[in-house]
Amino acid sequence: MAKDFPTRAENYSQWYNDLVIKADLAEPSAVRGCMVIKPYGYAVWEKIQAALDKMFKDTGHSNAYFPLLIPKSFFSKEASHVEGFAKECAVVTHYRLKASPDGSGVVVDEDARLEEELIIRPTSETIIWDTYRNWIQSYRDLPILINQWANVVRWEMRTRLFLRTTEFLWQEGHTAHATMDEAILEAETMLNVYTDFAENWMSIPVLKGTKSPAERFAGAIDTYAIEALMQDGKALQAGTSHFLGQNFAKAFDVKFLNRENQLDYVWATSWGVSTRLMGALIMSHSDDNGLVLPPKLAPIQVVIVPVFKNAEQLAEVSAKAVPLKKALEAQGISVKYDDRDTHKPGWKFAEYEFKGVPVRITIGPRDIEQGTVEVARRDTLEKETFQLTDIENKIIHLLSQIQKNLYDRALDFRENNSFRVDTWEEFKNVLDTKGGFIYAHWDGTAETEEKIKEETKATIRVIPFNNTKENGKCVYSGRPSTQRVVFARSY
Amino acid sequence: MAKDFPTRAENYSQWYNDLVIKADLAEPSAVRGCMVIKPYGYAVWEKIQAALDKMFKDTGHSNAYFPLLIPKSFFSKEASHVEGFAKECAVVTHYRLKASPDGSGVVVDEDARLEEELIIRPTSETIIWDTYRNWIQSYRDLPILINQWANVVRWEMRTRLFLRTTEFLWQEGHTAHATMDEAILEAETMLNVYTDFAENWMSIPVLKGTKSPAERFAGAIDTYAIEALMQDGKALQAGTSHFLGQNFAKAFDVKFLNRENQLDYVWATSWGVSTRLMGALIMSHSDDNGLVLPPKLAPIQVVIVPVFKNAEQLAEVSAKAVPLKKALEAQGISVKYDDRDTHKPGWKFAEYEFKGVPVRITIGPRDIEQGTVEVARRDTLEKETFQLTDIENKIIHLLSQIQKNLYDRALDFRENNSFRVDTWEEFKNVLDTKGGFIYAHWDGTAETEEKIKEETKATIRVIPFNNTKENGKCVYSGRPSTQRVVFARSY
Repeated sequence: MAKDFPTRAENYSQWYNDLVIKADLAEPSAVRGCMVIKPYGYAVWEKIQAALDKMFKDTGHSNAYFPLLIPKSFFSKEASHVEGFAKECAVVTHYRLKASPDGSGVVVDEDARLEEELIIRPTSETIIWDTYRNWIQSYRDLPILINQWANVVRWEMRTRLFLRTTEFLWQEGHTAHATMDEAILEAETMLNVYTDFAENWMSIPVLKGTKSPAERFAGAIDTYAIEALMQDGKALQAGTSHFLGQNFAKAFDVKFLNRENQLDYVWATSWGVSTRLMGALIMSHSDDNGLVLPPKLAPIQVVIVPVFKNAEQLAEVSAKAVPLKKALEAQGISVKYDDRDTHKPGWKFAEYEFKGVPVRITIGPRDIEQGTVEVARRDTLEKETFQLTDIENKIIHLLSQIQKNLYDRALDFRENNSFRVDTWEEFKNVLDTKGGFIYAHWDGTAETEEKIKEETKATIRVIPFNNTKENGKCVYSGRPSTQRVVFARSY
Repeated sequence: MAKDFPTRAENYSQWYNDLVIKADLAEPSAVRGCMVIKPYGYAVWEKIQAALDKMFKDTGHSNAYFPLLIPKSFFSKEASHVEGFAKECAVVTHYRLKASPDGSGVVVDEDARLEEELIIRPTSETIIWDTYRNWIQSYRDLPILINQWANVVRWEMRTRLFLRTTEFLWQEGHTAHATMDEAILEAETMLNVYTDFAENWMSIPVLKGTKSPAERFAGAIDTYAIEALMQDGKALQAGTSHFLGQNFAKAFDVKFLNRENQLDYVWATSWGVSTRLMGALIMSHSDDNGLVLPPKLAPIQVVIVPVFKNAEQLAEVSAKAVPLKKALEAQGISVKYDDRDTHKPGWKFAEYEFKGVPVRITIGPRDIEQGTVEVARRDTLEKETFQLTDIENKIIHLLSQIQKNLYDRALDFRENNSFRVDTWEEFKNVLDTKGGFIYAHWDGTAETEEKIKEETKATIRVIPFNNTKENGKCVYSGRPSTQRVVFARSY
């Protein structure tokens, strides 16, 4: 695996793109803006899915599946929702092809035009709330706590592997509640689930907070988000949870008899994370040597590489390596033993380093004499000699150290790249020279927010939960402000 | 749960449809031909997915993900493939909506017409083989053993929940090989995986064999299939595995350097099962009292229903029931304890019977005195009193008995509904009065096959593997035949 790709310092954007492709995570497809997720990348996504799915179920949710295609008219029912999504909808207009008259291929059969066009779901609030109408009569039918793992399509003009693709994979939770308080609590609970997952599985520290009105989900009353800071100083929105109020219930006429026997509209939330998390994962931890994966999400957690000169030596090494593999697997660790004789150890070291395997164990003839193995960790690239005694527990401990170290490192980075800024000059200067999270006073108006965005491309990422109140002046307008909000340029 | 739906004898088709809806498995959606899979139905599908996914991985396959949308021109590249699918393709022609001029909603933005239309995948051979071209240079890159869990769309004119829907969920395996023999072995291996799954997880006996040329997958050299017999005497194709030869490699120019250093086209297979399996599962075992699920695929394997007159009694019963639930769960059994005081025990009995929960345990005050529980099994509706001693093992044993009994019962049914038929009159008579699998001689021509289909709606389901050779006369044409093939009307 030649490292024929730029360093982060040389070209961060190119480094990311090359890394995704060369580490066999994903690649562009023949279809504009759509990617192919390759087996190694998909294995990481499966780990993400499994962990999140368990968290959703542990918090009382069930999975279900709603149609991919949504009647066009559904989108018009919630005014801000259609405004948010109309410009990026893939539209199905026909349901049949036929042989082309000149015999050269197939053409769309104009006799098979749909009466009403169908939209490939960019998100499923509309079709789901149209369905919930028939499921809900009384408060006894509530809450409905459903999640869906699905693909969605949003016609993006500029796409980047994992970060912004026309089609992407995600989960979307859609819940229905009898009271406003319960719905708000649900939206908060799910943001906490996302936070837990980001920090404890992905080793990515995140800021939790509320989006400004301009950054809200189309159709939401409030959008909560977690924001992570990438190594190039740009923010990445890693998950959102929306309190939708009664907007969709009103749009789709979903009423219920409450405990007081009064008809009322149902309260809603929706929340989602997507394959975008793969981009956050890659950008948070990887380095100029390639991918770095937190152990909890690594498809291969430990690779064992034998060093040998001939078949006899390989047999000796394997006599140690194979039982070691089994012993580690018995502890729930995923292990690969790469005993191929077609590649040299050095080639294998580079390969697994590049693919981000957290721990590499090397066993050679000398190790066998001495009852040791060499252990290399991917995060620090340090090597150490381990006695074989109690090796399983040592490796378990090391994996958890790596998991924690990645988090600590990312947190350090974020702390070192968070700035309190009080003047407009400083704001622009920090943004251009350092990036990062900028805590600055804002006058609370959409106009100021828009102008800051126009002039600097920075947006308000979140208004942190339980934000400290502090009197100050808006960094842009100079008008009074009661709190600092978090600005950044973002993905 | 009122049993306000027809018996199988009264109206099998209506019985099926009502059962699917009333047991909360799935329901029609607002989008023509597309269904909503409800949480209870989806939980069964998740169990199917988990079991199959493990089997695929145990046989060396990895998951990946390819785009939903396929350029129209890709379909024309394999002649029989396009012929097979052109008539049922959903076509994306535009990528944007805009406000309608009269302000009443949204319309398709004609300025956003795609240069080349995109097809929602009806199956993914074309996009995958277009991708494999870049992955394969030499025999060292082979085999590629990939599976994809995905949704697909085929524009069906007549749809039925699970059995035939416009959108359905499935898995599609797509493998690439250096030799013909290896590809054929792969196609056979995966049919065996499907057989294992159908028989040991779904408790459905299946016939394995080859499809006649007329029934082959569009683009295959050979299609292998498993066929199950439903309670109404109709066959259901439960899974297919295709040997694709070099057809797709030629269509997409996928060549490799073989061990002899010669350029050759790559050999391919594809194989899939879908949410149609849910239909097979429901129809194979369920009865006039509702759903019957094999324990291995039941979301709830055991339900515990307390009998009590007041809160004090409930507390006493719970003191036994809660530890029992935990003890069973510790054995990997999924258990629900329904201690709601809003519903009577009798209502709960009917509910879980209708939902197909394999085992129901009832605990009342008298049981507590006597150290017993009442155990009812869903398959036979029999009740028995169990001593609490060693109850976990008794329940484990009972679940495995039920799993086996369902299989045996389905096998008996199939054996009692398989007929050897030698005359055309008998053929039509058996078909109209009994249905089932008809083993009859066929002259091997597509013309005869087509005429039989026209006159009776029966098709050749499979030519069984290792079929007994036997000289005879075609049941339709009277021409000589060397073997019996299996005819049936089918879903």
